[in-house]
Amino acid sequence: MAGNSIGQHFRVTTFGESHGLALGCIVDGCPPGLELTEADLQVDLDRRRPGTSRYTTQRREPDEVKILSGVFEGKTTGTSIGLLIENTDQRSKDYSEIKDKFRPGHADYTYYQKYGIRDYRGGGRSSARETAMRVAAGAVAKKYLRQAYGIEIRAYLSQMGDISIDRVDWDEIENNAFFCPDVDKVEPFDALIRDLKKQGDSVGAKIQVVATSVPVGLGEPVFDRLDADIAHALMSINAVKGVEIGDGFAVVQQKGSQHRDALSPDGFGSNHAGGVLGGISTGQDIVANIALKPTSSITIPGDTITKTGEETQLITKGRHDPCVGIRAVPIAEAMLAIVLMDHLLRHRGQNQHVVTETPKI
Amino acid sequence: MAGNSIGQHFRVTTFGESHGLALGCIVDGCPPGLELTEADLQVDLDRRRPGTSRYTTQRREPDEVKILSGVFEGKTTGTSIGLLIENTDQRSKDYSEIKDKFRPGHADYTYYQKYGIRDYRGGGRSSARETAMRVAAGAVAKKYLRQAYGIEIRAYLSQMGDISIDRVDWDEIENNAFFCPDVDKVEPFDALIRDLKKQGDSVGAKIQVVATSVPVGLGEPVFDRLDADIAHALMSINAVKGVEIGDGFAVVQQKGSQHRDALSPDGFGSNHAGGVLGGISTGQDIVANIALKPTSSITIPGDTITKTGEETQLITKGRHDPCVGIRAVPIAEAMLAIVLMDHLLRHRGQNQHVVTETPKI
Amino acid sequence: MAGNSIGQHFRVTTFGESHGLALGCIVDGCPPGLELTEADLQVDLDRRRPGTSRYTTQRREPDEVKILSGVFEGKTTGTSIGLLIENTDQRSKDYSEIKDKFRPGHADYTYYQKYGIRDYRGGGRSSARETAMRVAAGAVAKKYLRQAYGIEIRAYLSQMGDISIDRVDWDEIENNAFFCPDVDKVEPFDALIRDLKKQGDSVGAKIQVVATSVPVGLGEPVFDRLDADIAHALMSINAVKGVEIGDGFAVVQQKGSQHRDALSPDGFGSNHAGGVLGGISTGQDIVANIALKPTSSITIPGDTITKTGEETQLITKGRHDPCVGIRAVPIAEAMLAIVLMDHLLRHRGQNQHVVTETPKI
Amino acid sequence: MAGNSIGQHFRVTTFGESHGLALGCIVDGCPPGLELTEADLQVDLDRRRPGTSRYTTQRREPDEVKILSGVFEGKTTGTSIGLLIENTDQRSKDYSEIKDKFRPGHADYTYYQKYGIRDYRGGGRSSARETAMRVAAGAVAKKYLRQAYGIEIRAYLSQMGDISIDRVDWDEIENNAFFCPDVDKVEPFDALIRDLKKQGDSVGAKIQVVATSVPVGLGEPVFDRLDADIAHALMSINAVKGVEIGDGFAVVQQKGSQHRDALSPDGFGSNHAGGVLGGISTGQDIVANIALKPTSSITIPGDTITKTGEETQLITKGRHDPCVGIRAVPIAEAMLAIVLMDHLLRHRGQNQHVVTETPKI
Repeated sequence: MAGNSIGQHFRVTTFGESHGLALGCIVDGCPPGLELTEADLQVDLDRRRPGTSRYTTQRREPDEVKILSGVFEGKTTGTSIGLLIENTDQRSKDYSEIKDKFRPGHADYTYYQKYGIRDYRGGGRSSARETAMRVAAGAVAKKYLRQAYGIEIRAYLSQMGDISIDRVDWDEIENNAFFCPDVDKVEPFDALIRDLKKQGDSVGAKIQVVATSVPVGLGEPVFDRLDADIAHALMSINAVKGVEIGDGFAVVQQKGSQHRDALSPDGFGSNHAGGVLGGISTGQDIVANIALKPTSSITIPGDTITKTGEETQLITKGRHDPCVGIRAVPIAEAMLAIVLMDHLLRHRGQNQHVVTETPKI
Repeated sequence: MAGNSIGQHFRVTTFGESHGLALGCIVDGCPPGLELTEADLQVDLDRRRPGTSRYTTQRREPDEVKILSGVFEGKTTGTSIGLLIENTDQRSKDYSEIKDKFRPGHADYTYYQKYGIRDYRGGGRSSARETAMRVAAGAVAKKYLRQAYGIEIRAYLSQMGDISIDRVDWDEIENNAFFCPDVDKVEPFDALIRDLKKQGDSVGAKIQVVATSVPVGLGEPVFDRLDADIAHALMSINAVKGVEIGDGFAVVQQKGSQHRDALSPDGFGSNHAGGVLGGISTGQDIVANIALKPTSSITIPGDTITKTGEETQLITKGRHDPCVGIRAVPIAEAMLAIVLMDHLLRHRGQNQHVVTETPKI
Repeated sequence: MAGNSIGQHFRVTTFGESHGLALGCIVDGCPPGLELTEADLQVDLDRRRPGTSRYTTQRREPDEVKILSGVFEGKTTGTSIGLLIENTDQRSKDYSEIKDKFRPGHADYTYYQKYGIRDYRGGGRSSARETAMRVAAGAVAKKYLRQAYGIEIRAYLSQMGDISIDRVDWDEIENNAFFCPDVDKVEPFDALIRDLKKQGDSVGAKIQVVATSVPVGLGEPVFDRLDADIAHALMSINAVKGVEIGDGFAVVQQKGSQHRDALSPDGFGSNHAGGVLGGISTGQDIVANIALKPTSSITIPGDTITKTGEETQLITKGRHDPCVGIRAVPIAEAMLAIVLMDHLLRHRGQNQHVVTETPKI
Repeated sequence: MAGNSIGQHFRVTTFGESHGLALGCIVDGCPPGLELTEADLQVDLDRRRPGTSRYTTQRREPDEVKILSGVFEGKTTGTSIGLLIENTDQRSKDYSEIKDKFRPGHADYTYYQKYGIRDYRGGGRSSARETAMRVAAGAVAKKYLRQAYGIEIRAYLSQMGDISIDRVDWDEIENNAFFCPDVDKVEPFDALIRDLKKQGDSVGAKIQVVATSVPVGLGEPVFDRLDADIAHALMSINAVKGVEIGDGFAVVQQKGSQHRDALSPDGFGSNHAGGVLGGISTGQDIVANIALKPTSSITIPGDTITKTGEETQLITKGRHDPCVGIRAVPIAEAMLAIVLMDHLLRHRGQNQHVVTETPKI
């Protein structure tokens, strides 16, 4: 069934395979009046793009996005926005190795079992290449949120393998290839990646994503809670295996007297909750963490089976990130932006008389 | 906006406040022909019910559920199933303490800010009492999944505060008040709870929920992935702050050669993935963990503000669990059942020619 | 699949069979702050109720609705509103005649074929009794629309069999048992009904429903147009076989120069469009017509088959309206109210900076 | 809010303006294994295309559709299908006449009021050009329905102005430019169009659309009835002002003894119901009629206002159909196909054990 849409009021629907003709998406529900150009989307696409450094896959797609509709004389019109990225890197390639084998850790087996057919070229629809359109759509949401409400959404890499950051310097993040906010960890991250390349192995990663200046009141209990929808959106990113809001799994060991955030006339005294109480935003920063599994495409041979069920082994050749988590930084930002945008429109519709923030668009 | 529904093909919609007249829900999309009685639902409601042991709140609601529609001559008819639990414990109570103050760690502040109005009696809609209807609806899904496909869904408490279980004995879980699968940890859990009661404090918890005999192929990429929908459903449970699928946050430190599950003619050799690859079930057990924050209602005074923004303090009196996580065990099972049910119907609709499992109903 | 909900932002979900324990619904998405009591809903339920005159079925249900949630201290809280009507008229009855036969013109055959099981008591879920909850839910929408924006929604019977009204006197409608706005047609309608009773036959009807003071801008192109959603909602009423917006089928014979509504600084000069252009409300009255088929339950024997496919005949005994269309007047109002409410919340969410009407709630 | 999607299980989402860069759509939920090429879609696009005869607008777009994803080695894969038509006829044009005036009978006024901004080039998003993507998406559904179940969906023009057809010869329909099934009415239709061209005027039309070999059981009571969803889909077509199922508005004058379709061991004896009872398909032909208003773009001057509210007049120049209804024939087929496809997948998911038809795909 139709599973390629996210959001109800701000709805993003995507299509496209890794090695098909093009990737595309429709952004439906963007309010009218937002100034929008392709350059607004390209910034984040370039941040996500493979091949921007030696740490990510060497595939070189320009990932140039075109806005095909929904913008007139430089402004959104309120109608659906069509976005397109043509796949320029479709050079004919030898797929004989993976055509009839299921790569372990990949979706090859499940797609084949579900659909009875599988586009084996680079993973087809299950490829992380699909996330390019999420980033493009998220950039629309990010711009609206920033311009209309001053909301900023940013993410960084907080851990790779055993190496965690010790501090967050927001200005440092875009200065290195790891989206690392701790300048002292750039060299250790670099060394780890070089080691992995030598071993032909990969490693997992942890990312934190934060939204600031979020108005109080976003989220619709009891199922469409803001935190539940964030969990959905973040878990839908390729390779994500865990999502935390605020203190996350650390709450298991916390006491109530320690976890609950005190309120004073000046606001909350702490943010263990991560900006959500009862599924509704508190007005504090929204804080979420995600865990990304290590890249499954490695050059160490893996045991698997063929389509006909016979035992075999597989080495994944080609250009692959030793840490797929790095590129997930702009993707996580995009997904959080899409969820906040959706909830903002929902909240405004139902509670117009309560809403006090007047959007600047 | 309408946020009280979950699921598209198997849709559960709930209503009811903690101290209102009744709780209710509509289960829409249950296939016809399932034998269903109130007793089928009552089993799980009794497992969730407060006051079943001294470890959970002393509120004593019989939580007796009535089936009002959708069942005829003992079988579901395919039409919407109306369920109702009347609130019998509505004794008039003194709410003056919390009427004009926001309890820290609760949804009081956010509900008030969002809606401009708040049912302060026991938390109103934001009370965990709402989850009774999830358990009732989930019991419908659990029965269908079991009868038609042999799918079993079970959960247990794996950690409370610093105490973790060391082994899982499925037969032990229903023998103690903690849903604890490790008989050696029952006494330590008991001691911890007694301590917390003395201190007037509370503690967090971790739960694992597992589904067995799940067919391969459930889940709709790229947004309505099975794991993403599970994350949404589990994060929508009161007090949940983190969700993991399979190895969860442990993947951050794993290598690719270690994480990816090898395939052999006999099936998968391990289950680091937790039963989902590319958003689609693999046929292995679905495994998820959730973290629940410590109960915010404790007798240690907390700093907060009044509705008019003045500084004050609050002690939450009354009957409260020192560990709200314990009761979440049947709730987590219910939410996983609802998601699997929804995806099963979606998958069957689109891939009828591929589906090989013939349901026994 | 789940088909018992209507609306996305203002969502109504219903349950209940004709001769089950109760009918109920959940109204999800009503903005907070609306003063609401059971009396507000009862007015329209009484208008719809069978047995209020000799022209409609003699079944005597008090149809007393209870509000079970979502209202606190007399006002809606923004949470889901649970409504319940207990079926008091469930006297045990002899269903042997219809248990194994499909009544012609009814849903007996299709329900049985679809679900493989059928609640044969009075039509079960397919009974027009289900519309009671639509009327209750619609009354919530009607009150909000009136109080917040001054929108009024009213309907009347414009034709029964060959007899059409000649004029519309809004004050006359509630003065007679036919919701007839032309006092001169009350006696002819009455005579027609008496005739039909003698013959054991029934007749069709036409209803017009009108909404006034509707703001310009409601409706979401290109699929969720206001007129498309109205068509959906009205066609979902039992027995409806046709829906018109504005001039409806008369447009087939019109010329462009005649149909298009001229605009002047004082507004539109005519309303052939029925208040919708391009799927968006114009600010004029929304005008729709519906055609309702004659009651299928008549005492003239009809040819049909049994569950096992054998030829038989059937006479529908019991209490039945000779013109089911009459009671559809409050139902049509309710459905239009639900659609307008849904679109109002959608529009407000997306176009907050454009919306100029400030709701009074 | 997001209004550019239709369907839940088979979901079509469109974008594109009349004079933008391209039109596109995403078809999500098509089952895997369907053989699909661009030629399959082009057939219906060519039938809808303006300029195919002198009776429709002289705009000459090749309307060449590209399949960008979702098809691999000639078969659908179950993933989302991206379709694109580039607008080749974007020659720079003088829009000064309509830029600041609202064309009467068009959506100019409502779009401007709703969004505060308007793409005035040829109506922008409100142009009937948008329906090209409906036809392309509908062609996917038509092919699946035909191949898997033998369902055929066809439509014809049954009336234009005062001229109605007298008989239906299905083989005649594609032989003339009017989709007219009565060879004797081709010349009168032709004469009428020539007359209208001379007068600079336009006329309305009536279309009948029929689906044959539809399985019994499609449709989800009580709101997502098959007939209600058909009404929604057909009313969402530009210029449609009325929808009938089966006998439609004629039922107002019918008696129950006349309307209800008798059942015999050989099936139904008549089809007044139009193939739907209680919102569920009966297995008979689905029959619907729609009324389309006369083209609003005529050369007879019309009174209107400017954006600043001043009185003015407008003549719509350019290439316009005197009867927009003619081209709606393939569009109506497409919309019915989309609805049937959606309901087929829903029905299969919920009632797998009841479904007896085995799809051939």
